Amino acid sequence: MKACVLYSGGKDSSLMAVILQRLGYKVELVTVNFGTYPSWRAAEESALNLGFKHRVLEADETVLKDAVGKILEDGFPNNGINQVHRYALELASMTYDIVADGTRRDDRVPKLNINEIQSFEDRKNVHYLTLAGFGHKTVNHLSENLFTVKKELTNMKNNSDYEIEIRHMIWEIEGKEAALNIFPEHVQSRVTGWKENE
Amino acid sequence: MKACVLYSGGKDSSLMAVILQRLGYKVELVTVNFGTYPSWRAAEESALNLGFKHRVLEADETVLKDAVGKILEDGFPNNGINQVHRYALELASMTYDIVADGTRRDDRVPKLNINEIQSFEDRKNVHYLTLAGFGHKTVNHLSENLFTVKKELTNMKNNSDYEIEIRHMIWEIEGKEAALNIFPEHVQSRVTGWKENE
Repeated sequence: MKACVLYSGGKDSSLMAVILQRLGYKVELVTVNFGTYPSWRAAEESALNLGFKHRVLEADETVLKDAVGKILEDGFPNNGINQVHRYALELASMTYDIVADGTRRDDRVPKLNINEIQSFEDRKNVHYLTLAGFGHKTVNHLSENLFTVKKELTNMKNNSDYEIEIRHMIWEIEGKEAALNIFPEHVQSRVTGWKENE
Repeated sequence: MKACVLYSGGKDSSLMAVILQRLGYKVELVTVNFGTYPSWRAAEESALNLGFKHRVLEADETVLKDAVGKILEDGFPNNGINQVHRYALELASMTYDIVADGTRRDDRVPKLNINEIQSFEDRKNVHYLTLAGFGHKTVNHLSENLFTVKKELTNMKNNSDYEIEIRHMIWEIEGKEAALNIFPEHVQSRVTGWKENE
């Protein structure tokens, strides 16, 4: 029972990894990268600190370009990020039969709707698992009990969300101000290891 | 971290119990009963076979009567069962701060929508957890690995779903045929214990 979790180094995908491991899956943490910026490094560090195997899935740069085009056209990132996430899931499904991510009940982006999920499972003959049964309050509570976490402003080195390569590409095309307008600075939580009692 | 799972003895609520236990919660399995028929017995047996504490939460018979009235008016059980489930969650929230059930991604009844879930968590100051991130394919797969399961036709003694007390009350009011029309016989899976390697 090998399963992969699309992994950013954050609390949500870390919790998903722990749940699957404790249910008996052999878990591999996977970070998709489009080859434009090594944004997977923070995720790899978190994964290794938790004792999981980590893999970078090399992705097609044109998908990132299309998503950035969509984001610049829209003026906001939601649709472009969903585009990237759907692609990342499909990419993972080429290697794994069980594909998971850390999307919670109250997440809005990235998120597949119920029809997209059903279609993904049927077309690719995979199991797709999420944290949709858990809200942010529960994830925070569990994370506090399980993990040591570092809270800090997101920068180019401490985050492995899709956001980083997207932001990097927008910066190159439209400049720093455009990149920061679309992705304002915010505080993030990054998992740095296990709490001592775990 | 004490948590309760609304428990029927089926695969879904058993899996939810295992997930929460393996995340560190002290789990109690709870079956709501309206005092009209001892339908909690099958659930208690499954819970004890898995080594969990089991409790019966005594519920108000008028809630069951209202639900049965709704079901007879509708001619189908969905709305009445949802009514009972919402009440069961509220009842559990009077004793527990963390309330879970085994509703899956592809379940239609009983199920709270996202607004009902948010309202429930806020009004009662609880965490509400479900299996909404897992589809039936995944639950079946995990259940096969974790549990021994007995497949058989549902009867009054081997099932602890809300259905049993509802069916019993309809039988008393409208007769056997009406009860079987609304709840046709079907095959169920009941968890009977752990697989040997667990």
